[in-house]
Amino acid sequence: MEQAGELLLSKIARGDGHGENSPYFEGWKAYEDDPFHPIKNPNGVIQMGLAENQLSCDLVQEWITSNPEASICSVEGVHEFKDIANFQDYHGLPLFRQGVAKLMGRTRGNRVKFDPDRIVMSGGATGAHEVTAFCLADPGDAFLVPTPYYPGFDRDLRWRTGVQLIPKAKEDNITVKGLLITNPSNPLGTIMDKETLKMVVTFINHNHIHLVSDEIYAATVFSHPGFTSIAEIIEEEDIKMECDRNLIHIVYSLSKDMGFPGFRVGIIYSYNDNVVNCARKMSSFGLVSTQTQHLIAAMLSDDEFVQRFLAESARRLAKRYGIFCKGLRQVGIKCLQSDGGLFLWMDLRPLLKKQTFEEEMALWRVIIHKVKINVSPGCSFHCCEPGWFRVCYANMDDRAVQISLARMRGFVLQNKDVMLSSKKPCSPRNLMLTFSSMRMDDFLMSPHSPIPQSPLVKATT
Amino acid sequence: MEQAGELLLSKIARGDGHGENSPYFEGWKAYEDDPFHPIKNPNGVIQMGLAENQLSCDLVQEWITSNPEASICSVEGVHEFKDIANFQDYHGLPLFRQGVAKLMGRTRGNRVKFDPDRIVMSGGATGAHEVTAFCLADPGDAFLVPTPYYPGFDRDLRWRTGVQLIPKAKEDNITVKGLLITNPSNPLGTIMDKETLKMVVTFINHNHIHLVSDEIYAATVFSHPGFTSIAEIIEEEDIKMECDRNLIHIVYSLSKDMGFPGFRVGIIYSYNDNVVNCARKMSSFGLVSTQTQHLIAAMLSDDEFVQRFLAESARRLAKRYGIFCKGLRQVGIKCLQSDGGLFLWMDLRPLLKKQTFEEEMALWRVIIHKVKINVSPGCSFHCCEPGWFRVCYANMDDRAVQISLARMRGFVLQNKDVMLSSKKPCSPRNLMLTFSSMRMDDFLMSPHSPIPQSPLVKATT
Repeated sequence: MEQAGELLLSKIARGDGHGENSPYFEGWKAYEDDPFHPIKNPNGVIQMGLAENQLSCDLVQEWITSNPEASICSVEGVHEFKDIANFQDYHGLPLFRQGVAKLMGRTRGNRVKFDPDRIVMSGGATGAHEVTAFCLADPGDAFLVPTPYYPGFDRDLRWRTGVQLIPKAKEDNITVKGLLITNPSNPLGTIMDKETLKMVVTFINHNHIHLVSDEIYAATVFSHPGFTSIAEIIEEEDIKMECDRNLIHIVYSLSKDMGFPGFRVGIIYSYNDNVVNCARKMSSFGLVSTQTQHLIAAMLSDDEFVQRFLAESARRLAKRYGIFCKGLRQVGIKCLQSDGGLFLWMDLRPLLKKQTFEEEMALWRVIIHKVKINVSPGCSFHCCEPGWFRVCYANMDDRAVQISLARMRGFVLQNKDVMLSSKKPCSPRNLMLTFSSMRMDDFLMSPHSPIPQSPLVKATT
Repeated sequence: MEQAGELLLSKIARGDGHGENSPYFEGWKAYEDDPFHPIKNPNGVIQMGLAENQLSCDLVQEWITSNPEASICSVEGVHEFKDIANFQDYHGLPLFRQGVAKLMGRTRGNRVKFDPDRIVMSGGATGAHEVTAFCLADPGDAFLVPTPYYPGFDRDLRWRTGVQLIPKAKEDNITVKGLLITNPSNPLGTIMDKETLKMVVTFINHNHIHLVSDEIYAATVFSHPGFTSIAEIIEEEDIKMECDRNLIHIVYSLSKDMGFPGFRVGIIYSYNDNVVNCARKMSSFGLVSTQTQHLIAAMLSDDEFVQRFLAESARRLAKRYGIFCKGLRQVGIKCLQSDGGLFLWMDLRPLLKKQTFEEEMALWRVIIHKVKINVSPGCSFHCCEPGWFRVCYANMDDRAVQISLARMRGFVLQNKDVMLSSKKPCSPRNLMLTFSSMRMDDFLMSPHSPIPQSPLVKATT
């Protein structure tokens, strides 16, 4: 019996490529065992490991109440049920694609237009990344990814595709097929400036590798001058001519910007016709429910609502970020300055006895089990320096924010001397994801690999 | 530019493993170019290549009208919007899993219970099959599949997994990891009897290979004594002891039985804990929208409705099948006797000038372009004998049925002499998918392959 239970399965099923052994997911389990509830379990673990955007849900609920005909499951909209429930074309409902294309334009300041015919859907950004990897790379091929990066990528891009993620192409005989950037960055909450993005486009063109730009946090940006999409960069005069658009692909989603992670709306927007065609065929494995497509189509076609929602959502996120940052600063905890995202990157280096990842994990265990806050340690994001933690702040109400800050305050007071005696200043701007132009020049071709030693793209402090 | 457009993509993206070159999909395109509409395009192509169940949608719409609070997008249900839109646990909503488990029991006559904790969701049966293949087999491994089989399997199980589908393990050095059966059969519309199913279970246990039972048409069965699930077989006294349940996996879906293909509710029900765990992790790539999970949970918890829907749906399907069969018989066209499904298997062998697949394709082109009906030729189902066609009859209203029958009548009248002079009788029961007990004894182990020469499991006439 045991044999069939395990041995007769695939290598994938027997391995741990799913990545759930990471402390990122371990923290979720700790939360699930003892979840905070203001009345039922006031001493439980507060979930701050989940990048959800719950701050503007009331606006959506209001819109639904005013637009019941937008649903096929309301008395007002049920006459469309049959047609929608039976629609299974993998191109998706035309109005859905139009709505998403318009939203993508709007979250990028309407400075660039998106073509609805290039909108390919997939099961969340999770599915979008996997489909993109399946289209662009063979098993064993690699994508360059600046660290720190979202832990889920280790599952999404690698697990079933056999593709590798590497911070730089140091090994021979690895074919690098692309560069994956996350802009705004998860976990840093920072955005890339135009010059950096131009260098990225030049770099991937020079090396004939793909660029996948994950922009799922586009509308969470609250800093000025605001977010710049790769879609804008390739329209810039000095880039337009030299850029092969066949290499450019964007991953988008409604999970973060609209706050609908449960609806599994992931989007691949590729400038490469072959990728559009192939990804659309692959989308059969993760189509968005037509019930949801239909709702989203109606909601996104309401320009006035979308504009108001995006503006108000960014305003509320900025406010929440401010409250959180200030609360931490008051007890001596410094954070990297964010431009957006649903989290901040917290500097607890002064609390480490030694600057090692073992110490980071030890501190993390104290935070989760004693302070009872599930934050995510930097090591789970492949951060190269110990002591940083990602803290999500948009998945809770104001009361939970105050409780979590009070807990952090209590914890720091117990370690007061350590914090005050810390001589290391937090230099947040240094941590911004950036290409080093120095290293860009160091770029060398190796005899064994088409794309060796990359100009990294690494978060350092 | 061309290079990046195509050459820099993966082998999967550059190949044609997606299977869309099959006439099965080609027929869909012909329909899309000139779709029938009773008023706008009365001479257009009638789509009979799509196994949709549209006959009982009115019952669902009635239920929705009486239960608006079941939706999170109605005035009555919107207070649950925030919680549901933010729910992204890959276990799924508990009530959704309970509802599906109950439905699976009910469509199997409540003779067997399903455990909600073994319900794993995925993006339609399409996603369910791929996930199962990823869990059970490595690239290069094979599944045995009786022919004729659903053309989509060539995409679902093979394309991204690298797994092979073979009618029998004739080649050396192929590791056979499982047997895939479709019960009720698509395209035959027939069900497997208990004795055959017991032989299947004995066979896979004897050879230590997995059994994947695709039962997505379970509730469409209208014949008596009715459908038997593999779930019942493994509970039978004489099978229970010898069967290693770790080898048994069921694929289910709400697309056919409930008529919701757009909602992408696919289910993997495995008796193997490791597969449940792994498939659940993989379901991240194709989760069902929580908006849809929530609706389905409410609908399936209404026992009275579900019971009435299933009974009425089977009754209507039986009636439609009867009308269609009779209409074809009147002009001399014979069909295989079905037990269920949303299609019939039409015998046009008398119309072939020669019994070849070239002639079958030539006839198919006439049917689609002159008769203007999109049926699917047997070759697209890997049928081993030319002249058979799958005709879907549950995706249209009564008027379209009459028009399609009138078209077939006109066509046959032009070929009257051929039909009448045909001496070949249609022996439908011979075509039933079955294991030959004779060949079961022929089973031999080859020195190179763990599972050689299978007792096949092949539809012959």
